[in-house]
Amino acid sequence: MKEFDLIRRYFSEQSVNRKDVVKGIGDDCAILQLSEQHQLAVTTDTLVAGVHFPVDTCARAIGHKAIAVSLSDLAAMGAEPTWLSLAITLPSIDEAWVKDFCSGVFELCEYFNVQLIGGDTTQGPLSVTVTAQGYTPVNKHLSRDGAHAGDWLYVTGDVGDAALALQVVQGKVNVEEVYKETLQRKLDFPQPRVLVGQVLREYASAAIDISDGLAADLAHICIASNVGVNLILDNLPLSVVMRDSLSLDNAYKLALNGGDDYELLFTVCDDNKVAMETAIANTGVTITCIGQLNSSHKITTLLNGEHTYVDLQGFEHFS
Amino acid sequence: MKEFDLIRRYFSEQSVNRKDVVKGIGDDCAILQLSEQHQLAVTTDTLVAGVHFPVDTCARAIGHKAIAVSLSDLAAMGAEPTWLSLAITLPSIDEAWVKDFCSGVFELCEYFNVQLIGGDTTQGPLSVTVTAQGYTPVNKHLSRDGAHAGDWLYVTGDVGDAALALQVVQGKVNVEEVYKETLQRKLDFPQPRVLVGQVLREYASAAIDISDGLAADLAHICIASNVGVNLILDNLPLSVVMRDSLSLDNAYKLALNGGDDYELLFTVCDDNKVAMETAIANTGVTITCIGQLNSSHKITTLLNGEHTYVDLQGFEHFS
Repeated sequence: MKEFDLIRRYFSEQSVNRKDVVKGIGDDCAILQLSEQHQLAVTTDTLVAGVHFPVDTCARAIGHKAIAVSLSDLAAMGAEPTWLSLAITLPSIDEAWVKDFCSGVFELCEYFNVQLIGGDTTQGPLSVTVTAQGYTPVNKHLSRDGAHAGDWLYVTGDVGDAALALQVVQGKVNVEEVYKETLQRKLDFPQPRVLVGQVLREYASAAIDISDGLAADLAHICIASNVGVNLILDNLPLSVVMRDSLSLDNAYKLALNGGDDYELLFTVCDDNKVAMETAIANTGVTITCIGQLNSSHKITTLLNGEHTYVDLQGFEHFS
Repeated sequence: MKEFDLIRRYFSEQSVNRKDVVKGIGDDCAILQLSEQHQLAVTTDTLVAGVHFPVDTCARAIGHKAIAVSLSDLAAMGAEPTWLSLAITLPSIDEAWVKDFCSGVFELCEYFNVQLIGGDTTQGPLSVTVTAQGYTPVNKHLSRDGAHAGDWLYVTGDVGDAALALQVVQGKVNVEEVYKETLQRKLDFPQPRVLVGQVLREYASAAIDISDGLAADLAHICIASNVGVNLILDNLPLSVVMRDSLSLDNAYKLALNGGDDYELLFTVCDDNKVAMETAIANTGVTITCIGQLNSSHKITTLLNGEHTYVDLQGFEHFS
């Protein structure tokens, strides 16, 4: 939403400029200098019913997703999550709903040893805002702006499944019955790549999490780092469901333009490539090299070794 | 809202219990141990249009109030504010509105040297969630649970004006034209008592900010500290507008039960009374002694030296 970018610009026009703010508005997290030894990553995200999740999403999934989205931002900075604040606005009190919502929240909190330290409960249209915090070693955080021409571009997991799931929910696409549950889980219960993010601190030149869509978030890296990229479409990690349910052309489009995957997209210089792949192998998360950065200001796409055109919803060119 | 207390209980049932969380859910802020030298206070508050402010409130006032409410929570812990995250949900983009909203936000940020470090902008029904952070010296923060029988009870500024202003907006009470602007400012532009809070770290035994109403927030101190209190109604600091617009009886009721004053309510032991009064005098903020704590579990009220009954909306007794 372009208009909302305008709003964000207003918010960055403040005159306060504290010395302890290492990185303010504009990346996945802010980075704060607490002491010589400590930096803190902070991120805030709001999920609104009917905008960020279908209104009939189950309460446990909403709880899970609200936390996962924020932990994914911490992962993109390489931070170790520590504390969460949760503000929930509810139209009315349904105890069973709240219990399920909390189970979704606490499952992730327990897994990542993150403590809920406060928040607010108010009456109104359903929405959830989470502020998550985590530690990063001093000046070791990942960011969007460190990529260089020649670096390799990687992505974790598969891309496009969440967008496909949304299209199924909306009745736009049909998939075989056997795939439906797995697919719905990809939309409702994204797994933030927290451990991968921490490992990448030692190897990656830039990172971002895919919330807006691979092409849009890749454009964020390219703009912040002043680079372009040659994407190898053949390498895009597509799930079996994607390959079985869509034409390859449509699958590529959805993988590039669909949001909500919460995978990590990151870049690595040639010297770090092997060491990074070895280190990530220990996390059990699959990663795929999907292209190489260059000094253009374009996202170009290769298919079978030849340049091809895929609609990247306006993210082909930037300056 | 009793039902929302139930919800808060669900949120406190988590199993994660980090060593670096000095104080979790349940006070005005959480307190986090960052290092041997540093503690951080964190608070989150949501304002929903039509619930926490009238729908036709001007944008600058909404921006101001969203920040003031969170800074007031930091003040109640004696914290020095440092950073803010702001999540705003807007039904649509009105640039002039956003500009005014930001001016309300940034005025307070500049005054208190607090930096906006991030947030989120989403589309939906109007609401604002702010997470504010600030430093406290190690184990020097104020809290609700430190009051003892014999301590004196104080309040900053005047009480009840915000509630009176709301009644005027709602057409329930009429005040003279000459008072209207001043009164509206009390509702729209509350001044968080940040400096007073920091001074009180050295003297007060307990503190809270008055958001729910004097009686309700006093009950929070009494329950947390296991004490009761004898309130001297004659001493309640009432503004000229309050005295001129309401019968004394109604003025007391509003001062005790009305919310949104964002004054500090605090307790001081007899030995610290004089030193505290001297120190606070330097801040330019008026304070008033309005009673003394005792070992009962009741809020009792005195008028002209005699026990009297005022409806405290259920907060007379607690156990």
